[in-house]
Parts: sequence; C-alpha cells; structure tokens
Amino acid sequence: MSALIIGRFQPFHKGHLSVIKMVAQKSDSIIIGIGSAQLSHTFENPFTAGERHLMISRALRYEGIDNCYLVPIVDINQYSLWVAHVESMVPPFDTVYSNNPLTRRLFEEAGYEVDIAPMFDRHIYSGTEVRTRMLNNGDWQSLVPKGVAETIYEVKGDERLRQLMGDSQ
Amino acid sequence: MSALIIGRFQPFHKGHLSVIKMVAQKSDSIIIGIGSAQLSHTFENPFTAGERHLMISRALRYEGIDNCYLVPIVDINQYSLWVAHVESMVPPFDTVYSNNPLTRRLFEEAGYEVDIAPMFDRHIYSGTEVRTRMLNNGDWQSLVPKGVAETIYEVKGDERLRQLMGDSQ
Amino acid sequence: MSALIIGRFQPFHKGHLSVIKMVAQKSDSIIIGIGSAQLSHTFENPFTAGERHLMISRALRYEGIDNCYLVPIVDINQYSLWVAHVESMVPPFDTVYSNNPLTRRLFEEAGYEVDIAPMFDRHIYSGTEVRTRMLNNGDWQSLVPKGVAETIYEVKGDERLRQLMGDSQ
Amino acid sequence: MSALIIGRFQPFHKGHLSVIKMVAQKSDSIIIGIGSAQLSHTFENPFTAGERHLMISRALRYEGIDNCYLVPIVDINQYSLWVAHVESMVPPFDTVYSNNPLTRRLFEEAGYEVDIAPMFDRHIYSGTEVRTRMLNNGDWQSLVPKGVAETIYEVKGDERLRQLMGDSQ
Amino acid sequence: MSALIIGRFQPFHKGHLSVIKMVAQKSDSIIIGIGSAQLSHTFENPFTAGERHLMISRALRYEGIDNCYLVPIVDINQYSLWVAHVESMVPPFDTVYSNNPLTRRLFEEAGYEVDIAPMFDRHIYSGTEVRTRMLNNGDWQSLVPKGVAETIYEVKGDERLRQLMGDSQ
Amino acid sequence: MSALIIGRFQPFHKGHLSVIKMVAQKSDSIIIGIGSAQLSHTFENPFTAGERHLMISRALRYEGIDNCYLVPIVDINQYSLWVAHVESMVPPFDTVYSNNPLTRRLFEEAGYEVDIAPMFDRHIYSGTEVRTRMLNNGDWQSLVPKGVAETIYEVKGDERLRQLMGDSQ
Repeated sequence: MSALIIGRFQPFHKGHLSVIKMVAQKSDSIIIGIGSAQLSHTFENPFTAGERHLMISRALRYEGIDNCYLVPIVDINQYSLWVAHVESMVPPFDTVYSNNPLTRRLFEEAGYEVDIAPMFDRHIYSGTEVRTRMLNNGDWQSLVPKGVAETIYEVKGDERLRQLMGDSQ
Repeated sequence: MSALIIGRFQPFHKGHLSVIKMVAQKSDSIIIGIGSAQLSHTFENPFTAGERHLMISRALRYEGIDNCYLVPIVDINQYSLWVAHVESMVPPFDTVYSNNPLTRRLFEEAGYEVDIAPMFDRHIYSGTEVRTRMLNNGDWQSLVPKGVAETIYEVKGDERLRQLMGDSQ
Repeated sequence: MSALIIGRFQPFHKGHLSVIKMVAQKSDSIIIGIGSAQLSHTFENPFTAGERHLMISRALRYEGIDNCYLVPIVDINQYSLWVAHVESMVPPFDTVYSNNPLTRRLFEEAGYEVDIAPMFDRHIYSGTEVRTRMLNNGDWQSLVPKGVAETIYEVKGDERLRQLMGDSQ
Repeated sequence: MSALIIGRFQPFHKGHLSVIKMVAQKSDSIIIGIGSAQLSHTFENPFTAGERHLMISRALRYEGIDNCYLVPIVDINQYSLWVAHVESMVPPFDTVYSNNPLTRRLFEEAGYEVDIAPMFDRHIYSGTEVRTRMLNNGDWQSLVPKGVAETIYEVKGDERLRQLMGDSQ
Repeated sequence: MSALIIGRFQPFHKGHLSVIKMVAQKSDSIIIGIGSAQLSHTFENPFTAGERHLMISRALRYEGIDNCYLVPIVDINQYSLWVAHVESMVPPFDTVYSNNPLTRRLFEEAGYEVDIAPMFDRHIYSGTEVRTRMLNNGDWQSLVPKGVAETIYEVKGDERLRQLMGDSQ
Repeated sequence: MSALIIGRFQPFHKGHLSVIKMVAQKSDSIIIGIGSAQLSHTFENPFTAGERHLMISRALRYEGIDNCYLVPIVDINQYSLWVAHVESMVPPFDTVYSNNPLTRRLFEEAGYEVDIAPMFDRHIYSGTEVRTRMLNNGDWQSLVPKGVAETIYEVKGDERLRQLMGDSQ
C-alpha cells in the first residue's frame, strides 16, 4: 500500500507533519509530491522546490520517518493531463490523500481511491499563517517542525520574503 | 464564403445556436473554433474540448446543420500570434463573427472582415448563467439546445461542476 | 461504438480512406485525429492542420461518409501524457486503430482496445510516396481521393513543397 | 562598466528617459531589456515588443544617446531561472538598476550589484497614467519623449488601446 | 559536503551504483538527478521518471545507502538556463560528478567544482547495453543491481521495450 | 525602406558583414534578427544570444554602420506562426533578405518581398568553417570582422567550443 500526498509546502509546517505521521501508520510508503515546483520568490510561493525538498527531508529525518519519496511536481496548464503527469513522475501509488476539491476530482475521475487528509487547527497550521508571521517578524518558528526553520535560515528565506514584500524604495 | 466563429462554449447554449443558425444562412460553411481548448475542470471552464466537441456536434445534428467544421483551439500566451495560430489550425475562412473586442481587433489588424454576432437575451443565454444554475441545481437544461444536456449527463459534467466548487470536505 | 484513428495525413491518401471505410462499417462514429497538428512547411509535414482538415473533410463528403469527427492534435513532448492529451481533445471513444508500435503501446497501457488498421499496398499508398512524386512532378494525384488534389492546388501546397526543397539559389 | 535596466515600457515615457540619461553618465554602455516582450494587445500591455523597440530607439536617437543595446526579453514562468534567462539574452553587464523588489532580489541572490533607479514624479510619469489618458483622449503626448507619440500613431496604437477597452458593441 | 550526480538511468545499472558508492564515501549527502525526466516509451528512454525513481530507491535501500535525495529533472530547451533549473529543483550542493562534456562545461561556467565520475567497464555497464540485451532477450539482469530487475518486471518495462521496437505488424 | 536579415550568426563572420554592407546601401534601416536565440553551448550553436549581440554590435561599430536594430529571436516549434512571431518582436520592415528556402517561403506566403542575400565565398565564409577551424586551432580569426574575435576571447567562447567537443575524460 503506497499513498500519495501533494502539497505546495510553502513552507512545510506541523499540520503537514501530522498528516504524514497519520498516513505513515496506514501505508508501506508515502510519496510526497512537492507541487507548483517551478514557483518561488513570491509571497504565496517564496521557496524553491529544492529548498522545500531539503526542509521536508530534514523534518522527516528528525522524526525518524524513512519510507517517504519526495518528488517535485511542476504545474502543467492543462488540468486534464495532471494525473497522467503525476503518474509519470512518481512511483506507483494506490491512495491519494487530499482536501483540495480539484485534486480530489481529478484523481477520482482517473479511478483512484481518494481519502481525506485530516488537518488539525487549520487556521493556525497553514502556510499563509506561517508566511504572514514571517513577514511581520512574528513567531512562525513554533508552527514548523524541527529542521524547517534551520533550512529557511540557511537559504535566507525569511529575509527573502520580507524583501519581496518590501516597498519599492 | 466561409465564416469563423470562436467561443469557449462552456457549455454550448441556445444563444450560440441562434448565432450559428443566422450565420449559416449567409455562408457556405462555418468553422466553429472551440477556444481555450486546453482548459477544463474549473468553474469557468468545466468541460474538456472533447466534451464540448461532442455536445456541439450533437446539437447541430439535431438541427440538421451539416456544413460546420469543429476545431479545438488551444490558447497561446502571445496575442500577436493568435490569428496565425487560428489560421494554421482551421480551413480557410473569409469573415469572422465575434463580439469580443480583443478577437475583433486581432483579426481586423490581420486584414479580415469582422462582423457582429448578434446574441439575444445575453444575460439569460450565457455560459455563466448556465453554470451558475447548474451549481445551484436550477433549471439550466432549458437554456441549452437538444443534445447538450444529454452529453453533460453522460460525462457527469454537472456533478463535476458541483464537486469542484464544493467545500473541501 | 466509437473508433479513434490517428495519423499525420501528409497528405490524406487512398490508403487512409480505405481504412476509414473499413472502420466505418464496424463503428457508430469515427474520430479522426490529425496528428502533429502544429507542424507544416517541411518535406515530412508540408500541410497545416487546417489544410489537412479541409482535404479530409472534402474527401469524406465525396464518399458520403458523415459520421466522422475531425480533431487536430498537437504533439506534446512527454509520451506519458499523450493518451490523456488525446482523451481531453476528442469525444469519448472505445477502440483505437493504429499500426504504430508507440501509439499501440500507449493506448494499451491506458486500458484501451487497440486494433490493426489494415493498409493495402503500403509502399504505394503512403504519404512519403505522394510527397516524393509531388516533388518530382510525378503522378501523385492518382494516389489521393477526390477532393484532396483540389485542396492542395487551392492552397498551393504542391508549389510550397517544391520550393521548400529547392536549392537555396 | 555596463548597466542593465529592465522595464515593460508600455509605453516609453519621460520618466524612463530621465533614468536612462542619469545612468548613461555613469556607464560605458546601457542594456535596455524590454520586459514581457511576448505581451501586447491588452490595456496593461498594448504595444508589441517590436513597437516598443522602435519607440525607444527613436527617442534615444533624438536625444543623441547611442551607447544603448535594446533587447526584448520574454517572461518565463519560473522566477528562479529569470536571471540566467536575462544573462543569456543580453551582453554582459555589471550593475542592475531597478525599483522592483522581485527584480532586485533575484539579481542580488545571483551576486549582482543592484542600484536604485530614481524616478521623478512617479504618479505622473507612469505607464498607467499614459495609457489612461490615451484611453480618455487626454493629453498623453506631453508625458512621452519625442519620437514615441510618432511611433504610436504610425502603428495606430492609441486607436488599438481604445478599441480593446471599448464595449463589445 | 553535498554532491550532485545527474544521469538518465535508463535503467539504473551496476556502473551507476559503483559511482554512487564511491561518491558516498566522500560526501555527507548525494543528490541524484534523474535527467530527461519527461521522456519515456522510446528505446533510448523506455522508463518513466517515476519508474526510475522506484528502481534507484530500491537498489540503494538494498545497499544500505540512505543519504541520497532523488530528484527528477525535466529537460529545458535552453542550455544556458539548465544550471539555474537544476539549482531550483534540488537541495544545495557543492560538487558535481559528471563525465558529460556539456554538463561539465555548464556547471564550470556557473562556478561549481566538477569532478570525474569514474565508471568501470563502460562498454558493458551502460544503459545502451542493458536495453539492447533486454530487446534481444539476453542476460541484462546481471548488469543491474538488486531491486532494479524486480521493478522493471513489475511495471512490465521489458515487455514495453520489446513491443515499442517491434515491427508494426 | 527597412530591411530584415535573419541568421544564427554562430559566429558573425565576414560573409554576414558583406551582406549587411550591401543591404545598408539600399535601406534606411536594417533589422538583424539573431535566430535560434535560445540555443548555446553546442557545436552548432556555441554562443548565447547575448554574446552574439555583443560581437555583432562591435563589428558594426568598427565599420561605422549605425542604422541597425539587433533583435534576438527564439525559435518556436510551429513554422506557421514564425512570421507573426518575428513581426511582433521587431520594428516594422518591408523587405526580407534570405537564402534559406523555408524562411523565403514563409515570408512570401505572408506577402513580403523577399530578396536574395548574395554571399561571397560561401564555403570559406560560413559559420561551420569558422567553428571547425576554432575546434582544430586553425586560423578562424581571419574569417571574422574586427570586434568578433575580441568578444569570443572575452567570453572564452573558443575554449568552450573545444571543451564541449572534447572526449568525455
């Protein structure tokens, strides 16, 4: 039994980690698709796919989770091709975990079993909340797993976010 | 005399049909370009180009109109190439029928005769109105020609639209 | 029962027509995919998708075949997406007719029934043979159905082919 | 010392010219990147890259500035590649002048020196202001350097803008 | 110290594994870029990126190598952007191991240290050799590490290769 | 009277210069399209568009030719769009000079006057000859105008060419 979870992980936070822990108990392996892999350097998507790959890998390593495949997935501008695109880029999988209506519909039309990814405290543990706190120098660090803040500091991701949103001097 | 009509046909409704009937009387053949062919699975563009091809073909057959060429046309991200793109994908044509200012301008700059496509009751017979009613389980069926509702049911297009807009359960 | 036949049709010749006639007897409708739709103006692919659309439509009309859907299909540079791409662009179909090993394999992996398209006299009735004769001012006209030569003359396709292969002055 | 200035120049106005004059005093040569080169025929981006190339060239010629390289630069949908894209399209440069936070950040991460491009009277000398006046038949001509209005009239750019925003008749 | 190794891995063979083992001794972590990720279903590139991801992961697991990041990398048609593209998709790295002159040159121009990847018995342990034997029903299994043949059988990759090269019936 | 000349200029040589000098006498301005602008780092196309822009600009400056517009033009994979693509990227032009049959045909079909670009000593003054000599450390310098060799040395273009073709060490 192999599970697929797709997210943008901008950045990877404790809500994401809790879902992965839950799914890890039910699956032999988990494929983590890093969506919109081509995007970076905006408020909505500040981190590159490589940076996200590193922060997730470290967080999982600290947690001792080692049956995950991380795969960046670039957007394609034709939703009707999206499932085939994902299938070609990742190892075979049985079940998809997603709360996004479009993702759910596309995989269901392709015949996959789609399950709910139960998120806790969604208004706190959300990428938008983390990025907003980062912008305002608030406490974003407590929302992300061990290894994520460390990665963001290394690539100067918090500074990047603030500069991108800065006024144009 | 060959005429070109381009629309997204999301979905094909009675307003579209009335334009085609009117143009059919003045032309030897009509090329129907199915625009934004690559889009599907959103509220604005729920149906694939193939699904739209089928619903239009059926509607025209029921009406006994048989001098139409249906051609899907994908968007290109450079408007200055769009007329050349259309020209390469469809049989030769003389006149373009469109109410869209951009379409009109682009074909006029390329030297084509561009005519008005007189729509009746535009606020009722519009794709947005049909999709909104579909979403709210209203009477959308009376706005579309014979053959269209049938096609939408076959491909479960109404269910798709509602699920896509559903809450993320 | 709906059948799919995909070819480049550079140009449409009597071998193509014989396959379509044969399939027409077994199917309610035939979808004719005009492959490599984006290509034109080379020796291998001299005619645009629009020109090919016109020549096929005319040939079928002369033959009284009226249950065909013609759909241009542009190449995508990722074979693993190709079946999904075709599915999104054409009406639903059950059976695929093709002699191309790649096409056959891709549709079989996607779960379609794939059948042989029996071609007669393949070394005579082939696009390469027609184009070679056209280049050398040989008798290519006898290899194509009624309506095709007429279309090629209208768009000056034979002159185009010879000029493209001409020496560079 | 070679400087790079990137803008969309929709259209080129006196604010742009004043920046170029200022930079010209400090640099041996100036590379002017015409950004979003693929866009045209919208209110935000009415003019093609070729039209913008012509209006800038003329304006600079009237001013006697002759050490500029004009280079159209199309957008790419992956910001992380943008600096490499610019580097491959333009001659080598040392300093980048920009007020755009994203442009500044991207070139800074790539190790370039990035300087401020001091604009005067930014709410008057702006592309939006010029286009708005053009739409409303106001005095846009006084906001653009000599040679620009002339070019816009030649390509009927003002008429295009008004027609694009016209109601759909 | 993090190392980058890029290959197409069509399929992953013992030559690849020996390089990775060698590099693993000198590096804290290894990023394995699965190149030409978008290609599959041809003789040169029979396997999808997902299938290659799975075969490499298994082979490394059997070997007890656990400090590798696997990342699919699609080609882009502009070599001048390629290093930036790789950088955006993978975690940060210091050294690149490659024998390909183009890869070496591109990373060197970008300022990276590039090292030789010493391959043993290159005419035996090569993707071409493995695929040729697979086509001819020869002994390809002995050329690939444990876990690779198993994966190829699961996805019917050997059958695919033979069918793709089969004559067209 | 404005003339268009398109070439790849890999690199710009004396044959190119002689054509430009000849055309310069008949035209008010010359647009020089740098074709296949996206290509670089191969034997056929070693130099980036920016490097080619610089070498041509310098050569023309040394010759005192100052009525030229240099414009990089990326390939598009649809020949039927190519003329529209060029038109959108460059200032308006009347006459096209080219010896390439495809270029000639495409512009003729679009209604342009196309003239011959008389090259002298084509087997000596050719890009292939220059690159071959560069690879073999022969006298390539005498085949290129003043300013070109200087540019190539600055960007280490000759070293790049040799390394790219070197054996894979």
